[in-house]
Amino acid sequence: MKIGETYYRSIWPSADGRTVHIIDQTVLPHVFATRQLTRLECAIEAIANMRVRGAPLIGITAAYGVALAMNEDAGDRALSAACEALLATRPTAVNLAWALTKMHTHLAPLGRDERAGAAWALARELAEDDVAQNALIGREGLAVLAKLADQLGAGSADRPLNILTHCNAGWLAAVDWGTALAPIFMAHDAGLRVHVWVDETRPRSQGLLTSWELASHGVPHTVIADNAGGHLMRAGLVDACIVGADRVAANGDTANKIGTYLKALAASDNRVPFYVAVPLPTFDWSLADGSHIAIEERDGHEVRVVRGIDVDGQVKSVAVLPKERRVANPGFDVTPARLVTSVITPCGTYSPSALAHTPELRASV
Amino acid sequence: MKIGETYYRSIWPSADGRTVHIIDQTVLPHVFATRQLTRLECAIEAIANMRVRGAPLIGITAAYGVALAMNEDAGDRALSAACEALLATRPTAVNLAWALTKMHTHLAPLGRDERAGAAWALARELAEDDVAQNALIGREGLAVLAKLADQLGAGSADRPLNILTHCNAGWLAAVDWGTALAPIFMAHDAGLRVHVWVDETRPRSQGLLTSWELASHGVPHTVIADNAGGHLMRAGLVDACIVGADRVAANGDTANKIGTYLKALAASDNRVPFYVAVPLPTFDWSLADGSHIAIEERDGHEVRVVRGIDVDGQVKSVAVLPKERRVANPGFDVTPARLVTSVITPCGTYSPSALAHTPELRASV
Repeated sequence: MKIGETYYRSIWPSADGRTVHIIDQTVLPHVFATRQLTRLECAIEAIANMRVRGAPLIGITAAYGVALAMNEDAGDRALSAACEALLATRPTAVNLAWALTKMHTHLAPLGRDERAGAAWALARELAEDDVAQNALIGREGLAVLAKLADQLGAGSADRPLNILTHCNAGWLAAVDWGTALAPIFMAHDAGLRVHVWVDETRPRSQGLLTSWELASHGVPHTVIADNAGGHLMRAGLVDACIVGADRVAANGDTANKIGTYLKALAASDNRVPFYVAVPLPTFDWSLADGSHIAIEERDGHEVRVVRGIDVDGQVKSVAVLPKERRVANPGFDVTPARLVTSVITPCGTYSPSALAHTPELRASV
Repeated sequence: MKIGETYYRSIWPSADGRTVHIIDQTVLPHVFATRQLTRLECAIEAIANMRVRGAPLIGITAAYGVALAMNEDAGDRALSAACEALLATRPTAVNLAWALTKMHTHLAPLGRDERAGAAWALARELAEDDVAQNALIGREGLAVLAKLADQLGAGSADRPLNILTHCNAGWLAAVDWGTALAPIFMAHDAGLRVHVWVDETRPRSQGLLTSWELASHGVPHTVIADNAGGHLMRAGLVDACIVGADRVAANGDTANKIGTYLKALAASDNRVPFYVAVPLPTFDWSLADGSHIAIEERDGHEVRVVRGIDVDGQVKSVAVLPKERRVANPGFDVTPARLVTSVITPCGTYSPSALAHTPELRASV
């Protein structure tokens, strides 16, 4: 994705192929800063503190984290310890476990001398595959949106197709393109006029990242409080919802950023199609349904403290709530499959009930 | 309501009975400051800028605003102009129109010399009636909560009754007691153990006022992002939702703070009872249903700028979003009656479909 005149991915290896660079998403959209991850510990810290976030990007960062670990010690114990430490950073996105299993399975049979090189090669391969899968999601999703626009007589400057999204499932959440936003970028590029309602997505306000991405790409959009979407749907101002996911169970139950379930309920109540866009590593075929997905409880600090720009143009944090007040901060919720219209994947678009019967979704890089 | 050792109402006339005092809710909960309203224009500014907010309190402030106007000019034209200007401040809460109709109807037939005295007397009477109605709502609601706790085996220290509320419908939103919070205060006082999930309520964060009220009263509670409630209901952690309202149509359709509808959907999906607590002036019998309730669109500034306490303990504002980004900020939504379990009123607790057939709800001070 381009920022100004420079083409960026959300993560990339350094020229010498022994470290990796990320965009620090904790200071976006107020400050654009990159960081170099030089050791396993840097990767762990970046995932845990959400310098990188988004299910696909977490997986790829973990893969590079194993590669960083192999730079220093390519022994069996170091390999297992690196995978375990990375796996413990965040529980909900299955892409993390998927990437670490890939890395461990591939590296464990190799000799020590081969492991570092193989780790960097596989991490790069997983990253490339993520980009390719998201590009396919974009094309699939564009077809879905174009069909919907056609049915509604929408997609023109006079009557854009109004799409609501929650959290950030753009290129910052993946390696490039994004999941839920890929169809939107492609629709815009194809001349299908879209307008996006961007949920702020408290407490971490990832909607601000979505707004930043859409603004950079020139896509018309309006930021709203998370509370507003239901009203907009009742008022007929939303033609479709599209979100990413952190884990999709075999029956289509979808774990995604906290608040997704509320929007899916409103979409269902107002007959607005609700799409989930995911690459293949986001499916967890080991889970029959979403009831056993671990929901991460994050620090209450995320609710208590808000970061923004003060009157002097400086990035500042303010506390909206005193420390002594109790806060709960579940990071995700599970949207039951019955509320999901279709799941948009690199292989095609499926009703939730069809997922388990579609063998090509189980294929993997 | 007590703050520390001092008993406060949210609005009260000065000792000489010619001006009125309010608590400035735009700086709460960070700063406790009162303001004196000395002229009609002060009352208009206080309502429009939400120094006072909450449907019942808006109505009472408008009544005092007419009284302030009558201090200066008690002519027919001044009376009508004052009512019109106050009515134009905010469109959604019907209590505003109700109070102004009361004032105008009462004052118009009087001679000029009598109007100021009569205006102050009626405004005080409306304020007293609001307190009395909210106390009755509290008793009614306590009975509802006690019955529910009994059914669930809840209400003890080990197993409190878990109640979710949205926005602030406490004493700050009325003159005293509050609507949705009155039953909670009374339950706590009666030894029925409750725990309240407090929705932050972006963009104006009135949940922080609710937390402040509950903390002052010693009621256990936990603040959550607006996105979290659906997940908590799915997890079985919410026994009931209770909210206030800005306007209830004859069929029970309920306009309340933006986001209420999303919580009502989640409550319905999880068979959690959803209660609306309102005094009689919040009913709008002229509306058959909620489809014609005017929904206020407020300034995008409320979404863009967040106020809190900085590291030096100073109240500071930070912008989370650049000015050039488009923002929409609808202030209210309408929850369809089918999602409302019961409406708790000073006269009793009714299913939405029974409201129109209950003549005593149309009685008025």
